[in-house]
Formats: sequence, C-alpha cells, structure tokens
Amino acid sequence: MAKPFFLSSFLAVLLLSLSPLSSESAPERRLGSSKRAPRFFGKFSHPHTNKLSNPRNPKYRYDTRYFDQRLDHFSFADLPNFPQRYLINTEHWVGPARMGPIFFYCGNEGDIEWFADNSGFVWEIAPRFGAMVVFPEHRYYGESMPYGSRDEAYRNATSLAHLTTEQALADFAVLITNLKRNLSAETCPVVLFGGSYGGMLAAWMRLKYPHIAIGALASSAPVLQFEDIVPPETFYDIVSNDFRRESTSCFNTIKESWDIVEAEGQKKNGLVELTKTFGLCRKLERSKDLSDWLDSAYSYLAMANYPYPTEFLMPLPGNPIKEVCRKIDSCPDGTSVLERVFEGVTVYYNYTGEVDCFELDDDPHGMDGWNWQACSEMVMPMSSSRDSSMFPEYNFSYSLFDEGCWNDYRVKSRPTWITTEFGGHIFGSNIIFSNGLLDPWSGGSVLGNISKSIIALVAEKGAHHIDLRAATVNDPDWVMEQRAAEVKVIEGWIKDYYQEKKAVFDM
Amino acid sequence: MAKPFFLSSFLAVLLLSLSPLSSESAPERRLGSSKRAPRFFGKFSHPHTNKLSNPRNPKYRYDTRYFDQRLDHFSFADLPNFPQRYLINTEHWVGPARMGPIFFYCGNEGDIEWFADNSGFVWEIAPRFGAMVVFPEHRYYGESMPYGSRDEAYRNATSLAHLTTEQALADFAVLITNLKRNLSAETCPVVLFGGSYGGMLAAWMRLKYPHIAIGALASSAPVLQFEDIVPPETFYDIVSNDFRRESTSCFNTIKESWDIVEAEGQKKNGLVELTKTFGLCRKLERSKDLSDWLDSAYSYLAMANYPYPTEFLMPLPGNPIKEVCRKIDSCPDGTSVLERVFEGVTVYYNYTGEVDCFELDDDPHGMDGWNWQACSEMVMPMSSSRDSSMFPEYNFSYSLFDEGCWNDYRVKSRPTWITTEFGGHIFGSNIIFSNGLLDPWSGGSVLGNISKSIIALVAEKGAHHIDLRAATVNDPDWVMEQRAAEVKVIEGWIKDYYQEKKAVFDM
Repeated sequence: MAKPFFLSSFLAVLLLSLSPLSSESAPERRLGSSKRAPRFFGKFSHPHTNKLSNPRNPKYRYDTRYFDQRLDHFSFADLPNFPQRYLINTEHWVGPARMGPIFFYCGNEGDIEWFADNSGFVWEIAPRFGAMVVFPEHRYYGESMPYGSRDEAYRNATSLAHLTTEQALADFAVLITNLKRNLSAETCPVVLFGGSYGGMLAAWMRLKYPHIAIGALASSAPVLQFEDIVPPETFYDIVSNDFRRESTSCFNTIKESWDIVEAEGQKKNGLVELTKTFGLCRKLERSKDLSDWLDSAYSYLAMANYPYPTEFLMPLPGNPIKEVCRKIDSCPDGTSVLERVFEGVTVYYNYTGEVDCFELDDDPHGMDGWNWQACSEMVMPMSSSRDSSMFPEYNFSYSLFDEGCWNDYRVKSRPTWITTEFGGHIFGSNIIFSNGLLDPWSGGSVLGNISKSIIALVAEKGAHHIDLRAATVNDPDWVMEQRAAEVKVIEGWIKDYYQEKKAVFDM
Repeated sequence: MAKPFFLSSFLAVLLLSLSPLSSESAPERRLGSSKRAPRFFGKFSHPHTNKLSNPRNPKYRYDTRYFDQRLDHFSFADLPNFPQRYLINTEHWVGPARMGPIFFYCGNEGDIEWFADNSGFVWEIAPRFGAMVVFPEHRYYGESMPYGSRDEAYRNATSLAHLTTEQALADFAVLITNLKRNLSAETCPVVLFGGSYGGMLAAWMRLKYPHIAIGALASSAPVLQFEDIVPPETFYDIVSNDFRRESTSCFNTIKESWDIVEAEGQKKNGLVELTKTFGLCRKLERSKDLSDWLDSAYSYLAMANYPYPTEFLMPLPGNPIKEVCRKIDSCPDGTSVLERVFEGVTVYYNYTGEVDCFELDDDPHGMDGWNWQACSEMVMPMSSSRDSSMFPEYNFSYSLFDEGCWNDYRVKSRPTWITTEFGGHIFGSNIIFSNGLLDPWSGGSVLGNISKSIIALVAEKGAHHIDLRAATVNDPDWVMEQRAAEVKVIEGWIKDYYQEKKAVFDM
C-alpha cells in the first residue's frame, strides 16, 4: 500500500466534497489518479488565476475581506504578517444589542470560497438564528498566503514552518476577537462549524478557546486518528466493509485482484497487458502505480458513498459502491478478475463515459499543504489488515513514513505532538461530533456521547459530512433528522449562554 | 511614577520571597534599589558560577535532570533544542499501579532551585498523597537556556523571541507526557502548583491542558491584571491601603513627601541636601531616582507584609508596614516629612542596621527575562490615582510603555494577546486561586468563587503566596487553615479522578 495515499486521502475527501468538477468537464477529459492530488488541488486553489477567464459565481452572498494576521502567534520572531482572507455576511445578523450569534466556519485545507459554497447548512440555518456568518480561510491555502505568494510560502520547510494547526486556531481566535471588538459585539456568542479537518479545527478550537466560542459542530472529524488511539486498520476496514455489505463476491474479487495485478506485472508483456485492460493513456511502468490508482478509487468511493447522485470530484451515482459491485458481479461468466475490477472502478473514474483513457497520477511529490501538515504534526498511522480488509496487507511504519516525509519536505514529523497539545481523548463541553458510519473517517471520530454536552450524532447510512451540505430534494429522512438535531443542540447552547449572561446582568 | 517599576515589581516579589540574602549579608553591604532588579537577579540566577565558591545546600532532596526540549512547539522552524532542567523526587511516590499523583510546580521567572527551596508546602504535603514531586525550570531562566548560554539567549529580540508563556506551558506539557510515558505512569493524576507568575502558569496550564493536569493551585496569581479587566489603579491602591490601615498620618506623610522631594530637587543645592538626608552613597542626579527608590520600598513592603519576621530579599520584621508607620509616626515633633520618610524606609532597606549608605539602582536597563516578558505579552497596565493612593498620580499610557520597550528590547508589545489566548475571565474547572488581601497583586487575581470547582481562598491578613511556603512555628492559624483547605480540595480532585478512572475500568 502506498505511503502517499495515507497522506493524501484526507485531502482528497475534501476535493470530493468541494469541487464542482462537473461544470468543468470536457468531452475528452483525461483523468489522473487523485492519490496525492496536488495538481488537481493546485488548479482549484487559485481562483485568482481562474477568475479572469471564468468569473466565479458564488452560491451565497458575502463580502470578502482581509485581516492583517500575525504569522507566529507564539513567539516574537520578526516575521512578516500575511493577509488572511475571510468571507462575511451580516444581512441576517440581529446585531450586538440582541447578542446576535456569530456562525464561524473553521476553514480547512483549501480555498475558503469552495468551503463556503459547499457548506450550505451554515448559510441556511443562519437566518433563523439571526446569525452573522463568517468563513475565514486557513493560512497557507487559497489567497491567505504568507510571504506574498503561494510559491514563496511553499518554497521549502522554512517557509512552510508556520503551517500548523495551533497557529491556524490562533488566527481564528485573533480574528474573532478583533471582529467582535470592531462590531462592539463582545457579548455575541460564537458557534463553530467545520467538516473533516475543519471539523477537527472546530472541536479543538472549542477545547482550547472555550472563552471565544460557546460550542462546535464537528462533522466527520477524525480527532482520534492519532498514535494508537484507534487501531490503524480502522480506515481500510471501514472501506472494505462498505463493499462487503453490498456483496461478498464483490469484496472477494477486489481482494483477489491485488496479487493478480502484481503477478501480471511481472510477466513478460504483463505491463502492456495491464495498460490495455485498464485503458491507460500511457504504458504502465510499475504494477504498483496501478494498485495505488485502484486503491484510491475504493477509498474515495467510500467517503462519497452518498444516497443520491453527486457531482463533486467525480460525477457519481447515488450509492456508488452498490453500483461498483453491481458492475463487478454482473459481468458474464468467464470475465477475468481484472476485467471485473476495471468495470467497477469506471464507476468512479468514468461514470459519465466521457473518458477516453486514464492517466495515473503523474506528480505524486508536488508541494502540497495538506501533505506538509500530514508529514509534520498531523501524523495518522494507517495499516490494512490481511484478514479484515480487501486491501493488500500493510503495516504502518513510522520510520518509513519519516523517510518519505524527509525526502519530500525535509521535515521531521512529531507524531506525539497532537495528542499532547489537544489530548488523546476528548474533554471540554458543547461539541457535536456528527458522523456517517459509511465514511471511513468515522472510525477515527467520536461515535458515542462523552458527556451530557459532548455528544455524538451518528447516521448509519451517512458518508463524509453530508450534514454540512445544503439541503436538497433528495435528502433522505435521516439527513434531515441529523440536521434538525444539530439545530436543536445549537439552540440549546445559545439559550444557555443568554441565560448565563442574563444572570450576570441581573446580579 | 517610573515605568520600569511596573515592569519589575512582579519579578521583585519573587526575589523577595525566594532569595535568602541574609546569608550573604556583609557588614558593609551597600544596597541598591531593586526597582528593576536585574543586577540582583543576575547574581542569583546563575548558581553555577556561585557553586564553586559557595556550594548550595538545597533544603529538599531531589535529582536534577535535563530534558531535551524543543524551542518552538508551534512551528517547524529549524531551531536548536535546549536542555530544560527539572528537579524530581519519587521517594514518596506510590507508583503507577496505585496511580500515585504527580505534583508539578510550574517554574516561573527564576532559578528553579530557589523555587524548590521556597515552596515547602509542595514538599511537605507530597508524602501524605504518595506523590512524586517535579519542579521544572522555566525556559530562559536558571540553567534552562536556549542557544547554549544566557548571554546567547539574551543577546537580542531574535534570541529572546521564544521566551513566551505559551511555549513555557507547552514545555511543561511535553515534559509531563514524556515523564509519564517513561515511568508507565500515563494514568497518574497531575496536580499543578505555582505562585505569582508561576501561579498564572498553573491556572493557564489547567485551562489549556486539562487533559494533562486534573487541577491547579494558583497562589497569588494576578491573571486578571490585563487590559481593563481590573482598574489600573488596583495595585497601588492596595499598597496605599496597607499603609492607611496602619496609620492615616503615616499614609499622609508619605503622600506629602513626593512633592517635597521634587521641590527640594529643584532648589539650589537641593540634590546635595537630599543625598545627605537619605544617606545615599553617591550624589543624587535627579529627584526622580529617589522617588523611584522610595516607591519600590513601599510596594515590596506590601507584598512582603507577612505576620512574622522573614529574611527574603531583605531581612524584615513581622508586619513590616506597621513598623514603618511606627517609625514615621513616632519621630519627635519638628521632624521634617523627608526625615520621617527616611526613617520609615530604613525598615525596608536597612532593618539590620548594617548598611552604611544607600545605592540607588545603577543598572535599570540590563537585559532581564521578566522585563522582556512584560514588554512583549505580559503587559499589565498600572496607574496610581491622585485621590485613593499615596503615590504620585500616574496614568498608564500604552504609547509611552511601547516606547520604553522598543528602546530597551526592540520589541513591539501585544497587549491584547494574553486575554485572547487565555481568556479575560476564568473558565474551566478545578482551580484554586489563593490570595492574601494585603498583597497588592491580589487585586488582579480571583477573589470570589467562579463555580463549584473554581474557588477562591482569601486570607484577609495574607501577603504574597505565603501558603506555598514551608510551615513554621510562627504560622498564624489562618495560614494553617488556608493550607488545610487547599489540601482538602486537592484530595477531592484526586478522589474524583480515581472514581472516574474506576468507572471507566468497570465499564
């Protein structure tokens, strides 16, 4: 199993959920693997360059502003400030006199406009709360670049040094404090939102800055995916179960395929045959590249295993894994394992049927923000087990991991830092951890109530943070119920806060 | 009122309580003002240099160890590690199997051996808890120097950049986590202790790292002495009240004296006369230097206004302010205001009668760790009011403050950062704020219970963190009661923790 995959899968899920690629699709699009996805991400993370030719039409109304942010909050090193972009909408805000809430989405590893566009839930519930909406961008992503440009910010380990979670949280803390002061809104309660890594940020922000935010909705946030808190096989076991629950034969076919790919690759002309079978644009150079490409598809399918058709990174049918397995299982007798597997992954890589040939990842080592974070402090060990998973056996090795990170970034990872800083288990109060059990990241999140105010909302049939998305006519009941439950809890936090404030005022 | 005083008074209190100067006294000692106290502090903060000629004889038994500590926890900048010194004693520890507690004193701005020697309370209660005792040194103090030496660490603003509170707390977090892992003591509860700035660290550590420590005893910790949370006049008003409660005429004499000093200084030969009246070693150059010297004495007397004789920075009688006022008030009729004031401050500067002449501060601008901290993030605005204080009127000015700090350190202060990072008011749980109302720092601390588990223990007659000191035969009942109350609360934390652990274990 490829190491780079572990680094990039988290990022990929965001791409899956945030990038409306369908509107960009061209008849002869040649798709590459999104294994590390730097090329794809790079393309979309710079709307500036795209804006001229393709002016963006954001889904929601907001003003775009920039805050002069300190690069290092925790030292007095003489470093240049950077402009942190944030999107803000106050049209429904009832203002400071009525202590109107501030809904604050913790921007994660990407352009904040994509998060704003794809977190409809926050926009949709704001009016009923009389809430302001703020979407701050995470440092080193989108337009919020230190050192003047992305190229300078991503130049090397020194320029990337301040791309850390704690600095990002401090950015949020300083920004909120400043906004509130400027709006005379010091007493207005702040509610945090976030999905995926953004959900981790929301939860951790509530833990570390409870004086700044009264609660956090952390959707699909694998805050426990560190060290040995959850078994390292968790992620791939869930992906595998997503397939097995659809069809055991589908699961078995995929499980068998890895050895066959490898054996085939070692035959004379085997790589040529594989190139043909999988419709690749260029001759395959190593069977491993093909395995990685397949591997990515299955994991992304699991994250995006939504109940209705979606058009994120890839246009997909509803319940896409069911469709993959239907294809694999329904091949005529005599179809080879590899041909079946190919039929299956076309659901992911070519659902629209517009792809002529497939391009495997051609730039696995590009500088990429999330990979830097994964190599420095966000170290999430992942293995796949021989028995319970359909993937090739892999045992996570810190030394191999470190070697790769050193080669790519010249950075030495600190794998125990996150649990030291944020705790290996969750404390505090007023956090919702929402998860869908089909989502492979759910295994590293919080799935049971921890206390009366740290609660888990679990949707058995949910995938990756669907609750944060805008309502659609296709929403099944359980999504609507999950969102209603979230609204109710958030109402409770705000009500409690008002009562507390009133009590102080009455004293 | 002198700006440097605001910077250094906090440090000075530690010197007062920690430096057994009496053993160093020489017949012809010439004392200078401790206004900024860098010279004095420098002398004692390097036991290495003193050790050869005067081997230290610590009061308590411990091993001295060094932990290879990261200089910057919140970035991946390529900086050298530094050796963090810590003192450890495990002789009473009941070990990991019985979840023996770890008592952890948050080292503050000085040599950790002095804190260990002068925090007898922690050592004395450890055996009954079966607790390990750890005294970690604060970075940039004592032997815990980045960049190889004090000279290098204190070279300039760049080398001092990482002398911040958040980095120090992260040092503690990493050290505790590491210690526990090495001792297989992951489940052992940690209780934090600290006095003065160390008390602030203990409280903030509990707020920011509740997963690491179950509670904190924060003694005389002015966590609210920032921005406008408490009135800036608080400190000097308390000093003034300490004098007024002994004698109104004493208070009035001191209050009158400032104008007289200034007027005298403007007369022909006035500075010579003042030099004579106050027995100075060198001719006074500005009347302001004399005012600062007097000002310091009154503030330090208020902090060290203990009920029994002490020998800290200065040998002092019990209730020293009472003694000062007795001297001022009992002068024969016809004694001038200045002569009275001089009689009074000799209680502070020359109680043993061994001083031949007085040296005013001769090095107000030396590089000093606390002054750096006060100039960068620990900005505590202080004024003195014309009406309620006995001091010259002074209105704190951020711009003047910043100007001074820029001149001294080339650092730009961030006066709103501490409240952003730690909250302007206290949240969390399991913190004891202990204070004595005679202590001028008590006004910036927490004097009322905030919740069931954030409690205030207030001793009306207490001065600066007397509760942390070793028991003596002179302890009045209220000190013993305060300590007993602290022990009871700490017992409660540990008991609750054990019950929680047991509940998890039984599940």
